[in-house]
Amino acid sequence: MSVKVTGSKRVAIVGGGVIGGGWAARFLLHGWQVSVFDPHPETQARVKDVLENARRALPAVFNTSLPKEGVLTFVDNLEDAVKGAEWVQESVPERLDVKHQVMRQIQKAAPNAVVGSSTSGFKPSQLQEQALYPENILVAHPFNPVYLLPLVELVPTAKNTSDAISRAQSLLSTIGMRPLLVRKEIDAHIADRFLEAVWREALWLVQDDVATTEEIDEAIRLGFGLRWAQMGLFETYRLAGGEEGMAHFIRQFGPALKWPWTKLMDVPELTDELVQKIADQSDAQSGQYSIRELERIRDRNLVAFLRALKQNNWGAGKTLKEHEASLLEHQSMSPNEVMDTRMREFEVLPGWIDYNGHMTDFRYAQVFSETCDHLLGSLGVDDDYVNEGFGYYTTECQIRYLDEAKLGQRLFTTCQLISGNAKHIHAYFELCRADTGDVIATSEQLFLHVAREQGGVCAVRDDIKANVMRLVNAHADLPRPLAVGRYVGQRD
Amino acid sequence: MSVKVTGSKRVAIVGGGVIGGGWAARFLLHGWQVSVFDPHPETQARVKDVLENARRALPAVFNTSLPKEGVLTFVDNLEDAVKGAEWVQESVPERLDVKHQVMRQIQKAAPNAVVGSSTSGFKPSQLQEQALYPENILVAHPFNPVYLLPLVELVPTAKNTSDAISRAQSLLSTIGMRPLLVRKEIDAHIADRFLEAVWREALWLVQDDVATTEEIDEAIRLGFGLRWAQMGLFETYRLAGGEEGMAHFIRQFGPALKWPWTKLMDVPELTDELVQKIADQSDAQSGQYSIRELERIRDRNLVAFLRALKQNNWGAGKTLKEHEASLLEHQSMSPNEVMDTRMREFEVLPGWIDYNGHMTDFRYAQVFSETCDHLLGSLGVDDDYVNEGFGYYTTECQIRYLDEAKLGQRLFTTCQLISGNAKHIHAYFELCRADTGDVIATSEQLFLHVAREQGGVCAVRDDIKANVMRLVNAHADLPRPLAVGRYVGQRD
Repeated sequence: MSVKVTGSKRVAIVGGGVIGGGWAARFLLHGWQVSVFDPHPETQARVKDVLENARRALPAVFNTSLPKEGVLTFVDNLEDAVKGAEWVQESVPERLDVKHQVMRQIQKAAPNAVVGSSTSGFKPSQLQEQALYPENILVAHPFNPVYLLPLVELVPTAKNTSDAISRAQSLLSTIGMRPLLVRKEIDAHIADRFLEAVWREALWLVQDDVATTEEIDEAIRLGFGLRWAQMGLFETYRLAGGEEGMAHFIRQFGPALKWPWTKLMDVPELTDELVQKIADQSDAQSGQYSIRELERIRDRNLVAFLRALKQNNWGAGKTLKEHEASLLEHQSMSPNEVMDTRMREFEVLPGWIDYNGHMTDFRYAQVFSETCDHLLGSLGVDDDYVNEGFGYYTTECQIRYLDEAKLGQRLFTTCQLISGNAKHIHAYFELCRADTGDVIATSEQLFLHVAREQGGVCAVRDDIKANVMRLVNAHADLPRPLAVGRYVGQRD
Repeated sequence: MSVKVTGSKRVAIVGGGVIGGGWAARFLLHGWQVSVFDPHPETQARVKDVLENARRALPAVFNTSLPKEGVLTFVDNLEDAVKGAEWVQESVPERLDVKHQVMRQIQKAAPNAVVGSSTSGFKPSQLQEQALYPENILVAHPFNPVYLLPLVELVPTAKNTSDAISRAQSLLSTIGMRPLLVRKEIDAHIADRFLEAVWREALWLVQDDVATTEEIDEAIRLGFGLRWAQMGLFETYRLAGGEEGMAHFIRQFGPALKWPWTKLMDVPELTDELVQKIADQSDAQSGQYSIRELERIRDRNLVAFLRALKQNNWGAGKTLKEHEASLLEHQSMSPNEVMDTRMREFEVLPGWIDYNGHMTDFRYAQVFSETCDHLLGSLGVDDDYVNEGFGYYTTECQIRYLDEAKLGQRLFTTCQLISGNAKHIHAYFELCRADTGDVIATSEQLFLHVAREQGGVCAVRDDIKANVMRLVNAHADLPRPLAVGRYVGQRD
């Protein structure tokens, strides 16, 4: 299912709000050429806001760089936007007559493109009504922020060709998403049905003064929200059921279905009073943050969750790990390129700041340590190799601190091999500001290759050694960095 | 609200299943003496399984050690278990007649204890019926795994004294939980109403073959689950609403309330066929893992989420960060004034371990960094001095890694000043095993004293300089460490 990311592919985004903007950002950051059409006067500003958030967040999820960013174009008529596009993503307002008209315009100009609709309100068969090529239209319903969350509900109908469906699955995978193929079309697809149920119940609780919006959010995010982010509903209950099994557990649940545990047999009326009450409570809860600040907080948390899940190869992390492998595969990480490219990118996080307001000294060590992991990974030292009992140990490390790094600054690292053979690697790293390229710290490290159980230095596996030597040779003609071979306190 | 954790407090756990076991583990790991009563023959094995999981997971959340573990006792009659207990946690089966009987037994033997019930099925007023001291009974409904998730729904009635409520809040906080005081009692409290709504909807989707259990879990955990783990429902929607505001957004949602987005107006019938279908799908989805494996996977993910949130001081992390501060406050961090003995003591924490099972390289840097802070503090560099705009910057640091450190090992650091004057300090540190005194790493560091605003090196305040010189003189006759003045890779 792996499709090469060439950077020459074209996608059209029709409708440029938060969702359309999120799609644009995800495609752009994967190297696509993106045309956006939306007559709304603020489209450019809105899409650029989303893109700015995405540029901070999405690269932070991966231990490898994303493809070179594509080119973003705002086009002032729909036909020019979609012409030549391989994929068209429709995210216009949720009115069926509007969607029908837009679909006809799109398909006149781009008859072969797959058209994905971001709709949550309509089923694909409704969108296909009156269409020129219904077989190319399906629902591709994403979740905000589209540039970070991997889920996309892909809902076809019997009219879709298997070719259109498999093109859609394959293409969405190349931009790091996990297309969930929905077996039968149904109102609101799957996830939004759950959201709607919880929303209706929450409206009752606020209306009846059982809980405020903040208390409801706390009840979700300090408890089951943390479970659902990794296991969802059924796997969590399987676990709760324990050794006695799922069927036993469900039967235990049975009686509660008859209990008055929900008011959903009725629908709350959305009076002006209730709307105002929610808005006021929400202001009291979150009003101290701007929307932009909340977005950044949300994204920082999501990046941390996604990185953790990726490390554990679980849930959303599984999708991301596969995507990372595919990104690496498509990067010609020929060793001589390692020096020229950015090894790792970082953002100075709030927890990295000391009482001076600057990045604490040991966080520099952390950044260099993560860069070493990346270097070793790119040389072929993977989990399997480590599990076999081998690996590199750092034996010496020297850091020179040249300048400060402040909260939110973006940094990157570079690497140069000074020497290496089957048993050791001597590497030099620089930590640089992303905006100016200025070097703010250097690190020199010596690694020995060991067999952990025996505890001794030994030769690395041949293919890894070949990679080490290739990199050493590629860097042989680079000038020796001034910082290398110095002792602490040495005068220039 | 901070209550001293003395390790002498007693709690009784009545009902020792997964939930009771989770409570027992959380109390034990916070230094409480825990008596468990449950006539079930497998109680000891079950509680010990939960405790084993908890011992791996809970300490990994914090950057400081938990109090010394309390003593766990299994008691074979209820009266002996609850006698002298400050808190009794009831987690017996969800039958009201059983609960009433247990409450009477508890309160006969422990009239002054606060009794928290883990019930999700009953309201506190129902539990208080027929009770000897209804004012001491309330619902304290936790979430599995109880030892990790901070949420506990605390539901009182008008019969509870404000003293009982505030004792409950305060006590639950000392074991790292966040008691959410529910304003009005209601069936299933708050969170379980949402779970029930989603559960009912999910049953329909499986019954109608719209999605399998695995697809439903994917729809949750790859999308909105990741949002809910940090923001819940309303804050997420506030964000989706963007600059136009919450009220505007809710009104947009309005029409969907009338749409057929849910089947919850009806309740699915839990036929044998449906139960079996779910059990079979769940086996297909998760059957490759044992329950124990799934628990470990869940806990590993939860620990990573909680650590990330703690670092960002957000959601559940806010509770944990406060708890960590309170744990630190209650530790006797013996300040060491003698420079050539132990500067700081450390324990290798679970979060410090890499894939090799050893302390990650940058954690050595962290240990030395915290030792430097301690050194500077003892020289008179305090917050006031830093706030006046002065301080020491690390300019160079070299670490030599001599041996590994493993989980739970206790370490200490020593310090020797190599040179120093008004403008610089050149210091040498060793990191040693507490049990053998073996040196496992050395660090050499150069600090310059700077005026931050001007950005230049300048002389330190006289009294601090005097302390520096006193220490330099005291160390003048110590032999120069072999590790000092070496470059990376230098042969002996």
